[in-house]
Amino acid sequence: MSAVPLVEYKDASPEVRAVYDDIMATRKTDWINNFWKALANDPATLRRTWESIKEVMAPGAIDPAVKELIYLAVSITNGCQYCMHSHGAAAKKLGMTKQAFGELAAIVGMANETNRLATGYQVEVDERFRV
Amino acid sequence: MSAVPLVEYKDASPEVRAVYDDIMATRKTDWINNFWKALANDPATLRRTWESIKEVMAPGAIDPAVKELIYLAVSITNGCQYCMHSHGAAAKKLGMTKQAFGELAAIVGMANETNRLATGYQVEVDERFRV
Amino acid sequence: MSAVPLVEYKDASPEVRAVYDDIMATRKTDWINNFWKALANDPATLRRTWESIKEVMAPGAIDPAVKELIYLAVSITNGCQYCMHSHGAAAKKLGMTKQAFGELAAIVGMANETNRLATGYQVEVDERFRV
Amino acid sequence: MSAVPLVEYKDASPEVRAVYDDIMATRKTDWINNFWKALANDPATLRRTWESIKEVMAPGAIDPAVKELIYLAVSITNGCQYCMHSHGAAAKKLGMTKQAFGELAAIVGMANETNRLATGYQVEVDERFRV
Amino acid sequence: MSAVPLVEYKDASPEVRAVYDDIMATRKTDWINNFWKALANDPATLRRTWESIKEVMAPGAIDPAVKELIYLAVSITNGCQYCMHSHGAAAKKLGMTKQAFGELAAIVGMANETNRLATGYQVEVDERFRV
Amino acid sequence: MSAVPLVEYKDASPEVRAVYDDIMATRKTDWINNFWKALANDPATLRRTWESIKEVMAPGAIDPAVKELIYLAVSITNGCQYCMHSHGAAAKKLGMTKQAFGELAAIVGMANETNRLATGYQVEVDERFRV
Repeated sequence: MSAVPLVEYKDASPEVRAVYDDIMATRKTDWINNFWKALANDPATLRRTWESIKEVMAPGAIDPAVKELIYLAVSITNGCQYCMHSHGAAAKKLGMTKQAFGELAAIVGMANETNRLATGYQVEVDERFRV
Repeated sequence: MSAVPLVEYKDASPEVRAVYDDIMATRKTDWINNFWKALANDPATLRRTWESIKEVMAPGAIDPAVKELIYLAVSITNGCQYCMHSHGAAAKKLGMTKQAFGELAAIVGMANETNRLATGYQVEVDERFRV
Repeated sequence: MSAVPLVEYKDASPEVRAVYDDIMATRKTDWINNFWKALANDPATLRRTWESIKEVMAPGAIDPAVKELIYLAVSITNGCQYCMHSHGAAAKKLGMTKQAFGELAAIVGMANETNRLATGYQVEVDERFRV
Repeated sequence: MSAVPLVEYKDASPEVRAVYDDIMATRKTDWINNFWKALANDPATLRRTWESIKEVMAPGAIDPAVKELIYLAVSITNGCQYCMHSHGAAAKKLGMTKQAFGELAAIVGMANETNRLATGYQVEVDERFRV
Repeated sequence: MSAVPLVEYKDASPEVRAVYDDIMATRKTDWINNFWKALANDPATLRRTWESIKEVMAPGAIDPAVKELIYLAVSITNGCQYCMHSHGAAAKKLGMTKQAFGELAAIVGMANETNRLATGYQVEVDERFRV
Repeated sequence: MSAVPLVEYKDASPEVRAVYDDIMATRKTDWINNFWKALANDPATLRRTWESIKEVMAPGAIDPAVKELIYLAVSITNGCQYCMHSHGAAAKKLGMTKQAFGELAAIVGMANETNRLATGYQVEVDERFRV
């Protein structure tokens, strides 16, 4: 199965262009990364995914820079190359230093380790944690 | 295979007690949660894991409260019940509100979704992300 | 560790050739894809895996075309590049349109998202679902 | 970290009730399952997730009954207990027989097996699959 | 979706009994564990899975006791409670001591950690490893 | 996000060189593989990870050659390309034959299959396994 073609702005339908325009306006940038150009093969998924991402990653109780760190941590855990690159770039743009990346990678590593230790040892949840 | 017995402080060897004491002193608390009592069946793993966690979760370029959010996000992704409870409790102690948890869960959900969309569509990494 | 060499038909043992012949006859095709040529380094695994796949993917209560969609969905979830290609090609041969692929990818994405939301929120199974 | 409380209809805000009403109308049912009652603690996530699910699971190029099979297959792969129950129930309602479930479980098992065989043997993608 | 009923020997069809008999004879035991009683709801999957397990776990280049350690390590990584119990019990029967289990859990933990470190740091495979 | 640069011995700080020297001395080799050169960008993680690996992989109740098989099995399950290569090479150095690799891959495949069958069928843990 070949990869889907990337839909460039000039070849896009009005529906797709509207999403592209909103992505560029929201992110204050002048280009569209490949993820959206691939999703544009299915305009409904493009629109839905962008609307969701825009809502979830907006400023809230958690800072946008921290949100990108969380996104990156999950993407490393799942081994998604594309997502590591796109969210790594986003996190750097929002201030993630080389040292911060090192700390994040260390946490992701330790969490994956202790997740299996807790599972392997079948550790029962402490009552105090259930309150 | 039955779960391992939990090693209580009063029954612990001096080597294990030294780790328990350090956990309580570092965390400014007077109890030990089950994860460590289970690992105490293998004192070398208890000591090594604690030393690593202490180092990784200490204040650095990333704030300890943010580190717990990252730990929790990975634990939810991996479906580790125990870790969700222990790191969820730690995150709440460091200020995670109900709203912040909702945002974190939403990010974890979206990341797991887009990780598969990027994989399924075989999206090629943008040159700009590789710089 | 280098990848294993691919075992071509002309170099194959009679045991391996018999499996290759059955694959081509069952699938009404004249070539063998790399997966089987790699497994042929371990003839027992080649034979066992082929016999199992042949049985599992045969027409039954679920239509073969639907079976390929399910196989593809699991392969995307696990991030297996080879399997995405081979089962994506098989699904297309059995009628998966571009639109159907888009819908499948959307479902895989949503399932991976809600799997983590249900886990993160520790949702208890409804009694009605247990009946 | 204790699980979030479930938000019952009688205690729900108008915003949450509107989603509950749409779920019941769309599914032609008179009750709300726990997943939505848990998400209702974060009304934005409740609304967004429901809107997405409604769109993704609607009739399209893939039949709704097949969509539930795909959802169930991913949920088993990820080991999400809640999702296995809810989407298993939905699949049965749409006609999944006991035999069909057995075939689905067999496919999920085989896919998870061959995903690792292809990965472990580092099988290169055939040129024919890339066209 | 309720769990499938367990098929007891006395209620089993001749086809299922033949598999049960072979399991007991091969394992030199007088009982059948729940995994097989559940699979017996789909006799074809029961037979195929048992034949495969019997072949894969038989003595070969790798010792049966080591094979059970490998099986247990994968099951912990995937978080399969049932499999951890059944293969943990099998490993103990074949000589896995408490100390060996501790070492195995430690390896599983470290592997899960370094798998993510290698992924997160995008480490390129050394030429020497490709020879 | 670009990959981190590899830290060569000649450019390394005394702290990093000390770890490199210990790796080469412990492994009786004269080169450092890329994993450590990447981690050297974060000297604390380099040191901690090496100390942990050295301790976990040392001879104990489980033979070092078996430990590498377990490490390789987990790495295949997680789909970590780098780790499959490095631990595959280590396992071969410690005696893993081509036949043994075939058996290991078969076990990893079967474990991933039966992990999902046990999960999908919701098999309850036998009382005898809990003793």
